[in-house]
Amino acid sequence: MNGGSPVRQASVRAHNLALVLRQVAAADRPPSRADVAASTGLTRATVSALVDDLVGGGLLAEVGPAPRSGAGRPATGLVLHGYGPAGLGLEINVDYLAGCVVDLTGTVRHRAVLHGDQRPLAPDAVLAAVADLGARLRAEARAAGRTVAGAALAVPGLVSGTGLVHRAPNLAWHEVDAAGVLATGPLGDLPLTIDNEANLAALAELHAGGPDSFVYVSGEIGIGAGIVLHRDLFRGARGWSGELGHVCVRPDGPLCRCGALGCLEQYAGQEALLRDLPPGEAGLARLRDDAALAEGRLPAAGRSLGVALAGVVNMLDVGTVVLGGIFGPLTPWLAPAVEAELARRVLTAAWAPMTVRASALGPAAAAVGAAGAVVRDILAEPAEWVLR
Amino acid sequence: MNGGSPVRQASVRAHNLALVLRQVAAADRPPSRADVAASTGLTRATVSALVDDLVGGGLLAEVGPAPRSGAGRPATGLVLHGYGPAGLGLEINVDYLAGCVVDLTGTVRHRAVLHGDQRPLAPDAVLAAVADLGARLRAEARAAGRTVAGAALAVPGLVSGTGLVHRAPNLAWHEVDAAGVLATGPLGDLPLTIDNEANLAALAELHAGGPDSFVYVSGEIGIGAGIVLHRDLFRGARGWSGELGHVCVRPDGPLCRCGALGCLEQYAGQEALLRDLPPGEAGLARLRDDAALAEGRLPAAGRSLGVALAGVVNMLDVGTVVLGGIFGPLTPWLAPAVEAELARRVLTAAWAPMTVRASALGPAAAAVGAAGAVVRDILAEPAEWVLR
Repeated sequence: MNGGSPVRQASVRAHNLALVLRQVAAADRPPSRADVAASTGLTRATVSALVDDLVGGGLLAEVGPAPRSGAGRPATGLVLHGYGPAGLGLEINVDYLAGCVVDLTGTVRHRAVLHGDQRPLAPDAVLAAVADLGARLRAEARAAGRTVAGAALAVPGLVSGTGLVHRAPNLAWHEVDAAGVLATGPLGDLPLTIDNEANLAALAELHAGGPDSFVYVSGEIGIGAGIVLHRDLFRGARGWSGELGHVCVRPDGPLCRCGALGCLEQYAGQEALLRDLPPGEAGLARLRDDAALAEGRLPAAGRSLGVALAGVVNMLDVGTVVLGGIFGPLTPWLAPAVEAELARRVLTAAWAPMTVRASALGPAAAAVGAAGAVVRDILAEPAEWVLR
Repeated sequence: MNGGSPVRQASVRAHNLALVLRQVAAADRPPSRADVAASTGLTRATVSALVDDLVGGGLLAEVGPAPRSGAGRPATGLVLHGYGPAGLGLEINVDYLAGCVVDLTGTVRHRAVLHGDQRPLAPDAVLAAVADLGARLRAEARAAGRTVAGAALAVPGLVSGTGLVHRAPNLAWHEVDAAGVLATGPLGDLPLTIDNEANLAALAELHAGGPDSFVYVSGEIGIGAGIVLHRDLFRGARGWSGELGHVCVRPDGPLCRCGALGCLEQYAGQEALLRDLPPGEAGLARLRDDAALAEGRLPAAGRSLGVALAGVVNMLDVGTVVLGGIFGPLTPWLAPAVEAELARRVLTAAWAPMTVRASALGPAAAAVGAAGAVVRDILAEPAEWVLR
């Protein structure tokens, strides 16, 4: 529609579509068209036309008026549509694959996790498996009346903007063209972005009510960090920030999979925490359920984590550390040691105290962050979806 | 002048003054008024009025026309004024005080360094001494026809926006109201800002032709870092970034003045480099002149520096390390060890090689950076100077 309008007019309309959507998303309760007109300064006729497009595109739904006292016919209210376009989030990690579908309201509607060590598999096989998982979730979403509008994939490694995974040390991936492989599979028709798993989990934490600035620590087989500064993801100079797992704790420590000595992962990664215990969830459950076992080994891991994080805070000056992934449920045993190292080693600690807390998110936070990123892109630029 | 104009018109004029000044500063050779009109899109009459103000305020000077062939009277060219307002930069460091005056062209015109251990002195005495140094330089500048328009002070510690030095571990300063003390001294009439010395040195490096993104390492008794990302100083979440000297190299290493164990300063700070040698410049000269001595101890310091910097690069993803302060002239012995640790420990090193190089600046780079910051403020907002 409006295919023949000048560019300028189309861009005004795109801007206004996003404006209206933002007002509805931010409202405390479902606003009427008149409410939206009042809060945006647009005319009621303009708002009505925009709302019609957004309803027609499945982005907004109209809900019946709440009963109210007073005169006049109560107006219908507008809400983000729970059955419109949705985001597919996928995550490849070292010992699991995960996926979820998030609707426009940010609610996770469908999810799946496949546990299993990915290290013995070739990159193509892992990518094919995560694509199949995504296709299954997409079919579930479709059966429930939702349309997956795009996908984002989280990987435990360093990714270029074109979806090339330069390096994922714990998977032993080097220069894997993940975007290229996925383009030929069952999700090949979807817009796809690929990002680091800790970055996406940090975004999920931010949008789940996290503070304005924090370091999200993603504990898995590897350890990554997503850095949020002033509500923005901080990507460093070239886009590959946050490799906390390979910050050195002891220069002559044990050999890491990355080739260096004494990396944090060797002291606080999942395999260090679970030595002599069953791998994966079985071992983690033992740690969580056996207080003596947890108190026996987690404080030492917490001290190493604290040493590495103290360096991060001395350099970046971030006041909050959020422990996520497997660290989340282990926070009661890890946090005291982390806090002690931060208090001792961070120069600003005396007058600018640090907070260490568990993530608000459960496991596979990166998949949720990935799906959320897709949804936020739709909300930011609804015209791409409405004006097709 | 124009005191009665509406705010809007005054702000347009302020904007245009800055625009004209920027054009002159950026030009390859002295532009004429007509050149400035052509490059700004302002009318020649407007440019002439603005240039008159800038010449009258001592910001621009007119230089005689270069001889040229062709018809017509050659125009006079415009240059930044070498005798107009100037910036005073001051630096307090652990074993010296420094100051300089920089003119609008960025040239250092007057400078002084006072060597001497500041640690036995009370903060007020140190601040009084640096103010006296500044007053002397200001008098020298005045005698040469320059007017110091503002001052900036570099300190080796963590400073708030109001000029409170929260902590300078190597000076044992805690909560010193440096701005308050200086307001009562001989520089009390000057606008003054106070910042971390490594931050100001990093800015000096940037404006001396540094790359768009780098970590400037300031080697003194303490070790600081100024982080430049995409040509902007990166200050972290709360303004206290870059405490590289207190990044941990060995969790159980020697006790640092900050109270923690195994900080980088204990391995690569000036006192570690000069153990059993005379302190200060005498010892540094021995290190620089005695190749066997330098090769005997500097590579070990370089490895510790490399371990700490590898963590920084893994987190911040900055591709260039600039070694400044006492490290600058020692770069030939330090850099190979730093590079080896970066190559081994930085995940991106395989496809995004690192550069380690000596600073382009000499000693007391922070004082130069401080003075330069004052001058850049004048150039960015000339109206404050011209319209008084």
